[in-house]
Amino acid sequence: MKKEQIVKAIIKTGVILYNKDLIYATNGNISVRNGKEIYITATGLCKADLKPDDILRVNTSGKVAKGAPSIELNMHLGIYKNRKDINAVILAHPFFTNLIGIQPGALNLSALPDMEKHLKDVDFIRSIKPGSAELAKAVTAAIKKTDIIVIHRYGAVTVGSDLPDARYKLERLEYLAKFLVFKQIIF
Amino acid sequence: MKKEQIVKAIIKTGVILYNKDLIYATNGNISVRNGKEIYITATGLCKADLKPDDILRVNTSGKVAKGAPSIELNMHLGIYKNRKDINAVILAHPFFTNLIGIQPGALNLSALPDMEKHLKDVDFIRSIKPGSAELAKAVTAAIKKTDIIVIHRYGAVTVGSDLPDARYKLERLEYLAKFLVFKQIIF
Amino acid sequence: MKKEQIVKAIIKTGVILYNKDLIYATNGNISVRNGKEIYITATGLCKADLKPDDILRVNTSGKVAKGAPSIELNMHLGIYKNRKDINAVILAHPFFTNLIGIQPGALNLSALPDMEKHLKDVDFIRSIKPGSAELAKAVTAAIKKTDIIVIHRYGAVTVGSDLPDARYKLERLEYLAKFLVFKQIIF
Amino acid sequence: MKKEQIVKAIIKTGVILYNKDLIYATNGNISVRNGKEIYITATGLCKADLKPDDILRVNTSGKVAKGAPSIELNMHLGIYKNRKDINAVILAHPFFTNLIGIQPGALNLSALPDMEKHLKDVDFIRSIKPGSAELAKAVTAAIKKTDIIVIHRYGAVTVGSDLPDARYKLERLEYLAKFLVFKQIIF
Repeated sequence: MKKEQIVKAIIKTGVILYNKDLIYATNGNISVRNGKEIYITATGLCKADLKPDDILRVNTSGKVAKGAPSIELNMHLGIYKNRKDINAVILAHPFFTNLIGIQPGALNLSALPDMEKHLKDVDFIRSIKPGSAELAKAVTAAIKKTDIIVIHRYGAVTVGSDLPDARYKLERLEYLAKFLVFKQIIF
Repeated sequence: MKKEQIVKAIIKTGVILYNKDLIYATNGNISVRNGKEIYITATGLCKADLKPDDILRVNTSGKVAKGAPSIELNMHLGIYKNRKDINAVILAHPFFTNLIGIQPGALNLSALPDMEKHLKDVDFIRSIKPGSAELAKAVTAAIKKTDIIVIHRYGAVTVGSDLPDARYKLERLEYLAKFLVFKQIIF
Repeated sequence: MKKEQIVKAIIKTGVILYNKDLIYATNGNISVRNGKEIYITATGLCKADLKPDDILRVNTSGKVAKGAPSIELNMHLGIYKNRKDINAVILAHPFFTNLIGIQPGALNLSALPDMEKHLKDVDFIRSIKPGSAELAKAVTAAIKKTDIIVIHRYGAVTVGSDLPDARYKLERLEYLAKFLVFKQIIF
Repeated sequence: MKKEQIVKAIIKTGVILYNKDLIYATNGNISVRNGKEIYITATGLCKADLKPDDILRVNTSGKVAKGAPSIELNMHLGIYKNRKDINAVILAHPFFTNLIGIQPGALNLSALPDMEKHLKDVDFIRSIKPGSAELAKAVTAAIKKTDIIVIHRYGAVTVGSDLPDARYKLERLEYLAKFLVFKQIIF
C-alpha cells in the first residue's frame, strides 16, 4: 500500500470510531503495518480530527521519524512482533464492552451464534496503567492467542489483517456486549 | 430504473443502515430487482463503504456477472421467486429487534397502533446458520405470508415494493422493538 | 420570508429530526405558515430525504397547489386557524416522549427546572387514528392552551413562532422524557 | 490565534456538542479567551447552527462589541478572571452527567482509572436559576479549585487551556457518568 492510502485509512477509521462512540476525547489509538514501517496516531489528539501529519511513521524498533506517537506505541510494536499475520491494531474504549468487562464471565459469545464464528476468542486482562510497559507486556503476551483483548475498566484491543478487519472485530464485540448488557437488564 | 439509480440507491441505503446502527461490521446485505436482473451487495464489505463495483449484477437463476455476492444470495433469489410484488430485500441486524426476538411473544404490534397498520405481521424463524441453504429455504417459505421475518439471535429480513419501502419496514420494526424493550424495563 | 428559505428550512429540519431519531420511516410531518400560505411536507416520504418539490404549497382553506400533502394537513390547518401567533408545526415521534406518554403523570416538568421555564405546559390526548378528522379536531382544540401535545402511543405535536422554535420545544421535551425514563430505571 | 480560527473552532465545537447530544435546542454556551478579548456564543440560537456573526466579541469587563451574548456571559467572565490558566469555557447539558448529578456521591471517578487521571476533581453545586448572578457567582467561586462543575439538574461547566481541552473533559465526564448509570442499572 502507498503511504497516502494508509494515512487516509487511519484518518477515516478515527472518524468512524468517534462517530460510533467507540472512542472519546483524545483516547484511543490506531496503527497500520506496511512492510518494515508502522504508521501510528500521534498522542493527545482527538482521533476524529487527525490531519495527515498526525499519522507518524515508526520503524519496527520504535524509532519515530517525527512527532510524539501514542503512549501505547510499545504495545503496538509488541503486537506486530508477535503476530506476523497482523497489519493493523486498534485500542478503543467501546462503552458496553467496558461495562460487560467488569464481569468477564458475562461475555458469552454464543449468545449470538454469528459472533462465535467471527470473534472466536476474547481474552481479558486486568486493569493496568495506560501507557505503561506492564500493559504493553500483558497485551503483547495475550495477543499470541487471540485477536481481541478486553482491558478491565479501560478498553479493548483488536487486531486484524488490515485496518477494516480490526475495526470489524471491534464493532462485533461492542454489538455483542450491548446485547448482553440489555439482555441482563430485561431478564 | 436505470442501473446507475439502483446502484446509487443501494449505496445510500447501506450508509443509512450503518449510521442508524441497523447493521455493523461486514454484516447485512441489500438487493434490488429490476426486471430480470437482481443487484446485490458483495460479500465481506462494510455496507457503509460500498463503491459502485461492489453492487453485483445477478440473473434470476443466480448467475453472477462478476464478483463474490452476499452469502445470502440464495435467500434473496428465493424471495424474488416467491414474491412477484417485491423488488427489494434487506437483511439487517437491528439491535432491539434482535433483543426482543429472544422472546417472540414480546413483539406486540398493537403497543403502537400505527405500527399495526404499517407492519401487519411479523414472522419469527429459529436460529439457522447464516449463508446456509437451510436458512434460505426457511426465509423463502416464510416470506410468502409476511414482509418481515425476524431470525432468532441473528437479524431481520424486510422486503418491499422498492428499496425505501423495505427500509421503512425495518425502521418501524426497530422503533417498535426498542419501545417494547424499554417498556419492559420501566414497568 | 421567501419561498426558497422556507423550503430550505423545512428540508433541513427533516434531516435533523431524522438524525436525532425524532422521526423514522415516512412518519412525521412539518409545516410553516407564511402569510396566507402554508408549506407542508408531502405524504409517504422519509423526511430526511425531501426535495424542494416535496414541500407543498397550500392555502388556508386547504387547497393544495400540487401534490399529495401529509395526511395530517387538516391538523396543521386547524392549528394555524386557532393560533395566530404560530407559524410552524411539527408532528414527530420522539421515542422517550412516547414511552413516558404511557403514563402522562410521569412527565414531571419540574424535574429539570430549565424545562419548566421553556416548556410551560404539556397536554396529553388519547390515542386517535392518524390522519383522521377526529385527531385533527382533538389537537386543534388542545393547541389553544399549550404549545406541546403528546398523543398517546403515537407522537408529539409542537408549535412555534418559527420552525426552529417548534423544533427546540420538541428537543427539550424529548430530553426531559429521556431524563425521566432513566431516572425511573435507576431509582 | 487569529479571530477567524477562534470563530471556526467555536462553530465546530457547537456542531460536535450537538451531534454528541451534549447540548440541545438553544441550550449550552461556549467561549474562548484570546488575550484581552473573549469570544462567546450569542444567546437564543442552536449551537449546531452558528454563523460567524453569532460569535460575539467581548472585553474582559463584559462590554459586548455587537449582539446579544449568552445569558451566562458573567459566568464566563468570572471564570476567566479567577483562572489565568484557562482560555476556554463550555456550559453543556450532558445527559448522563445530569442524571448521575442527582446523587453527587454516585460520580465515582475511580470506577475507570483513566478518568481519575484526566478528570481529577469534579465539584457539584446546587440548582440555581440559569443566567442569574447567583449562578455566575457560585460557578466562579467553585472553578478556583476544579476544572469541572456539575450544576444540579441543569448541566456541567468544563474549562480548559484551549477549546478542545474543555471539550475533552466534558466527553470524559459524560462517558464516566454513562458508565456509572448503566453499572447501577445492571448490578
